[in-house]
Amino acid sequence: MSVYTEPLQALIDELNRLPGIGPKSAQRIAFHLLKIPKEDAARLAESIVVAKDRVHWCRVCFNVCDSDTCQFCADDGRDGRVVCVVEEARDIVAIERSGAFKGRYHVLQGAISPIEGIGPEQLRVRELVKRLEDDAITELILATNPNVEGDATASYLARLIKPIGVRVTRLASGLPQGGDLEFADEVTLGHALEGRREL
Amino acid sequence: MSVYTEPLQALIDELNRLPGIGPKSAQRIAFHLLKIPKEDAARLAESIVVAKDRVHWCRVCFNVCDSDTCQFCADDGRDGRVVCVVEEARDIVAIERSGAFKGRYHVLQGAISPIEGIGPEQLRVRELVKRLEDDAITELILATNPNVEGDATASYLARLIKPIGVRVTRLASGLPQGGDLEFADEVTLGHALEGRREL
Repeated sequence: MSVYTEPLQALIDELNRLPGIGPKSAQRIAFHLLKIPKEDAARLAESIVVAKDRVHWCRVCFNVCDSDTCQFCADDGRDGRVVCVVEEARDIVAIERSGAFKGRYHVLQGAISPIEGIGPEQLRVRELVKRLEDDAITELILATNPNVEGDATASYLARLIKPIGVRVTRLASGLPQGGDLEFADEVTLGHALEGRREL
Repeated sequence: MSVYTEPLQALIDELNRLPGIGPKSAQRIAFHLLKIPKEDAARLAESIVVAKDRVHWCRVCFNVCDSDTCQFCADDGRDGRVVCVVEEARDIVAIERSGAFKGRYHVLQGAISPIEGIGPEQLRVRELVKRLEDDAITELILATNPNVEGDATASYLARLIKPIGVRVTRLASGLPQGGDLEFADEVTLGHALEGRREL
């Protein structure tokens, strides 16, 4: 039963479809939108339409961009021989912030997750293999998330790509900087021990 | 520094303004919107515009509605002498679900909160007093939330309205049905004892 007037219920339903927005949040946001000035609500609606219209996937690496290729693929100053494979375009922001990588990227647009019905076919894996065949790539850094899905995706890609003769590496897993040994979980600590380095 | 292309950053910024949506959620929702079919995103944008356009506040009680007066104010079958005062229009849904109230409503559109700079002037208090003067109202049920802001609002309204000669009541505070005494907090238990009834 809907007690709300139809346009409001329609708005709540649409908001409820967004990731991380449950029925209560959807209701709260809908009422917020009703209360704010009309121009502000219109600006949100407009930004959705404009973003859908103008934001595309980079033809090469599937990062987000507003032209044919993204800023990283278009930048001749970056090393095209090393490609960092990430799950989502937002992961690029994190890596760029570290300032420790000057190569190019490849965005899978997800991770392998049998529970959610996402296999390699749903990801940009075919396009990655194509890039390896066409371009002079010597190293692939697998920077998928250090969780079950990310690790599974990395294992899958390593098995698939190593035979092509490209060096495949994975981001180091260990203790986060500024962390405290006492509070480290056992898996992280195990990885930190396994991956210990000579000083 | 924004690493994202401008239309995407604009969308993230707009989403970030919504209540309960932090920078991370805004990013997540924005990427979700980029991935879904264009029609689905357009439907969300459209629903915002339509809701802003067609949903108004009821002229009498400030509930949401798409005409001049809301369904409850327009319903002659409801008892206009008893008015239930709530903070938000969504609270009406909860009360209607109980099926225990057949009177009319008045939506304050908020609660008194000095921290957020909300006083009686920011709420629909003036309009409530006007209704009491004009209509034949005999009882006002204060159904603001049982928290600091809601209690403060109820106290304020009781002091303001009792001199007018209208009966002012407050929703009972006590143990929730289906609850467990062992897990009841001390304030609730205190209220339940204070408000005990003869059997």
